[in-house]
Amino acid sequence: MARNLGAAGYEVTVWNRTPERCEPLREAGAAVAATAGEAVSGSDITFATLSTPEAALAVGAEVAASIRPGCGYVDVSTVDAGTAAQISKAVQAAGGAYLEAPVSGSKGPAEAGQLIFLAGGDRALFERARPALDVMGKAAFYLGPVGAGAGMKLAVNQVMGTMMASLAEGLALAAQAGLSQAELLEIISLGAMANPMFKLKGGSMVEGAYPTAFPLKHQEKDLRLALELGARVGQPLPVAAAARQLYEQALADGHGDDDFSAVLEAVYVDRIE
Amino acid sequence: MARNLGAAGYEVTVWNRTPERCEPLREAGAAVAATAGEAVSGSDITFATLSTPEAALAVGAEVAASIRPGCGYVDVSTVDAGTAAQISKAVQAAGGAYLEAPVSGSKGPAEAGQLIFLAGGDRALFERARPALDVMGKAAFYLGPVGAGAGMKLAVNQVMGTMMASLAEGLALAAQAGLSQAELLEIISLGAMANPMFKLKGGSMVEGAYPTAFPLKHQEKDLRLALELGARVGQPLPVAAAARQLYEQALADGHGDDDFSAVLEAVYVDRIE
Amino acid sequence: MARNLGAAGYEVTVWNRTPERCEPLREAGAAVAATAGEAVSGSDITFATLSTPEAALAVGAEVAASIRPGCGYVDVSTVDAGTAAQISKAVQAAGGAYLEAPVSGSKGPAEAGQLIFLAGGDRALFERARPALDVMGKAAFYLGPVGAGAGMKLAVNQVMGTMMASLAEGLALAAQAGLSQAELLEIISLGAMANPMFKLKGGSMVEGAYPTAFPLKHQEKDLRLALELGARVGQPLPVAAAARQLYEQALADGHGDDDFSAVLEAVYVDRIE
Amino acid sequence: MARNLGAAGYEVTVWNRTPERCEPLREAGAAVAATAGEAVSGSDITFATLSTPEAALAVGAEVAASIRPGCGYVDVSTVDAGTAAQISKAVQAAGGAYLEAPVSGSKGPAEAGQLIFLAGGDRALFERARPALDVMGKAAFYLGPVGAGAGMKLAVNQVMGTMMASLAEGLALAAQAGLSQAELLEIISLGAMANPMFKLKGGSMVEGAYPTAFPLKHQEKDLRLALELGARVGQPLPVAAAARQLYEQALADGHGDDDFSAVLEAVYVDRIE
Repeated sequence: MARNLGAAGYEVTVWNRTPERCEPLREAGAAVAATAGEAVSGSDITFATLSTPEAALAVGAEVAASIRPGCGYVDVSTVDAGTAAQISKAVQAAGGAYLEAPVSGSKGPAEAGQLIFLAGGDRALFERARPALDVMGKAAFYLGPVGAGAGMKLAVNQVMGTMMASLAEGLALAAQAGLSQAELLEIISLGAMANPMFKLKGGSMVEGAYPTAFPLKHQEKDLRLALELGARVGQPLPVAAAARQLYEQALADGHGDDDFSAVLEAVYVDRIE
Repeated sequence: MARNLGAAGYEVTVWNRTPERCEPLREAGAAVAATAGEAVSGSDITFATLSTPEAALAVGAEVAASIRPGCGYVDVSTVDAGTAAQISKAVQAAGGAYLEAPVSGSKGPAEAGQLIFLAGGDRALFERARPALDVMGKAAFYLGPVGAGAGMKLAVNQVMGTMMASLAEGLALAAQAGLSQAELLEIISLGAMANPMFKLKGGSMVEGAYPTAFPLKHQEKDLRLALELGARVGQPLPVAAAARQLYEQALADGHGDDDFSAVLEAVYVDRIE
Repeated sequence: MARNLGAAGYEVTVWNRTPERCEPLREAGAAVAATAGEAVSGSDITFATLSTPEAALAVGAEVAASIRPGCGYVDVSTVDAGTAAQISKAVQAAGGAYLEAPVSGSKGPAEAGQLIFLAGGDRALFERARPALDVMGKAAFYLGPVGAGAGMKLAVNQVMGTMMASLAEGLALAAQAGLSQAELLEIISLGAMANPMFKLKGGSMVEGAYPTAFPLKHQEKDLRLALELGARVGQPLPVAAAARQLYEQALADGHGDDDFSAVLEAVYVDRIE
Repeated sequence: MARNLGAAGYEVTVWNRTPERCEPLREAGAAVAATAGEAVSGSDITFATLSTPEAALAVGAEVAASIRPGCGYVDVSTVDAGTAAQISKAVQAAGGAYLEAPVSGSKGPAEAGQLIFLAGGDRALFERARPALDVMGKAAFYLGPVGAGAGMKLAVNQVMGTMMASLAEGLALAAQAGLSQAELLEIISLGAMANPMFKLKGGSMVEGAYPTAFPLKHQEKDLRLALELGARVGQPLPVAAAARQLYEQALADGHGDDDFSAVLEAVYVDRIE
């Protein structure tokens, strides 16, 4: 993402907890800051991506301590609504503007500048950040107040997790019924259900291989959070609840770091060779 | 289908229980037989599409009584394996060849010659019928003995029914969480899950309209048969089982003749206006 | 059951497809008929218990051929409504009266005269048969026309199968969470959920032993039939549907002839020793 | 509970956020403290019951500030493991001993001294508190370190919630199939599934009445926490997950303050009159 910004002519300063990770970007022309605060204090807009709510909170606090009034902080990680609200409050108290902008899309789309940003929070910041978002992604949606971006991402990933579980059950049924899994995939690819995800992952699923694009443990977490969101807003989601149980089983079986298509392993009664 | 065959230069004789239904085809140049037997006895290959197993059995018996040795009977309706086996036996006893060839695709693809045929039974007949199948559809698969075509269709429709239930849950969650259903559809359409079915039906689902392409009661039946197939071959299908319950509820609520996307009505706790 | 009738002073004639099975009853004083017809033609009321719908139909036909007008035929096996209706029609056409009376309770209650009869069909025959039913069981219910007895049995066994699946999930959760399964059983036994079934089977489930009182394959069948009944009458049963999937898995894992409490094996991710 | 302790001869000091609530106990001979701290500082063992984790934490902090070294604090409310651990740490740092002891049983058993205590934490305190626990309840279990009591309560209530959902589905199926719900209850009460909970609540469920003993919103919460515990320890719970969705729906339909048997309302497609 930083590389794409630099290539588009933006002046980029980067920081990472593990300094070596900044090296490839330094070589590509980015400035490297010694601390998160240094990166923030010198920038109009700071983008952050962090792997846990705890890290997001810690970095958010540093940002609030260093941000110049009128500048913006855009967190593209996926955090829960409570965490986002806390960071937003701290940044606003320091005179800054906050936008949550979790992404749909994983490694490939990030490199290709094909991410989708699901933004919530400060609308003016969204408009200011838009040219940069357009460099890093192919679409950016402003969805409402803080929490709307995260909520939309959960709705998207709930559909994704259940669709994948559904394909897994179809493949397992085909195998047990003596039908060809490859033909099932081909037939689906010719009809109204045809989609890039089934096309991309179906072939390796048939081989029992699950090269990780989106880790199963993250899909499990998103289904869990979607179910919690459903509970909070009064929306039962029985099919997603059943799908989540399959991801739980795959997780318990040790597939947490495999691609989420490894949910197929939880569907098989006995692995079909 | 008959119209497409005629347009492609085949000599076509048609028969229907309700004679008026043959009129448009007569005008298009088809001969009209007085009985099913008359249509069969004068044709090299007879194609049939019937709406229930009972009708399929009744017509199958007439076919067996009239078919000339060496000729073929291709039933493109979806019937259970037991019914298909019974018809196959009768036709073979009369010296004919039998192929089940249920289609994937509904009204639009049928008119456009874009059906997909999932065939099981007599392989030689499949090869002989192929040029005609290619006129009526865009793909034809020979999947194995009688039953394989029907089994594959169930696997396909199981994935379809669960995918639709999954979209329905996503739309309902979005609505209850105060998010835009239209934006959810747009975001999905930009990512790896994008597929013609969501694109075609999503918009009207948001409007609460379900113009029938594939009736919900048929989707419910196919999920039920897929679950029975799963039980027979020892493959649990918990996500499909949860989806089926939603279709049951939609059916009980009177949506059997609506499009199967009306499963959304069973997901809503209260209809969102 | 026959032994209990004889002990109560009834004149009993028995017949079984496998003649040796009648020996213990002959020794206990029963007459042994050479054919089903002979048994029926000499009796006021004939009770039958058969293991499959096919056997029930075959014997029902023999009964209809031999029954004297005004006499009664009580089938205590569990058959589907269609089969029961067919036998009823045949017996009535011959001038006889028909009652379905499937039992709740397995081997132990049968020997102890503690069965529960769930009857449907000819009400007058129910009243005439009642003294005999009271000898074989502790309660007899007249529930309505043919089909009502079988329907009630499915409702009862649906609750039973789900309750057992529920206990299984509780035991598995306890084990995985490092809690004592024996203490869970004891706590349940002290509270409002205490019931003989958990008491009887819980201890051996903890040991991983499932001595068969009611085979798992029959519980799976009854859940399936209950779900079909639900589909027919428009009643979604999502919890029973989820439970059924566990029984499917246990069945696929080879536990069909174990007691239905072996559903626990389908809940365990890894068997806890 | 306090009344039972007083009646058994214990010297009891009570405190409540809402002072009037202490009046009946003062009349029964209890001393009334002005603050929680005052109650704690003068007692060997303090029992607390609080309705939310927040209240438990707030009172726990007061307890830690006032407890005399060597004295004990027994929290009989149900709180999550994290909250319990936090209170335990604070109390221990002050030299006190901590025991979580959530109860199984609601209002009736509390008045009758028939509660069941599920304890975790300081074993020595459990032994010292036992005579008092025996006055308030009919059984007390020491289950392990802090968290074990809460975990066991979740396992118990998971079984309870699913059993109730199962009865609800049985009752709804009976009604839709034209069978008598009262007869279903009677048949169950005669067999191996007979239990006080079905007996106590079944009759009013048939009437569509749900007088609150255990509020549905609490059962929903316990199912949710049990599923989270399952996710944490790697135990899929698909039947409980399906049951939870029914409680979600009942909650969304406004039955949160009704008894948890009101889950029946979520099962009915149309309310049976």
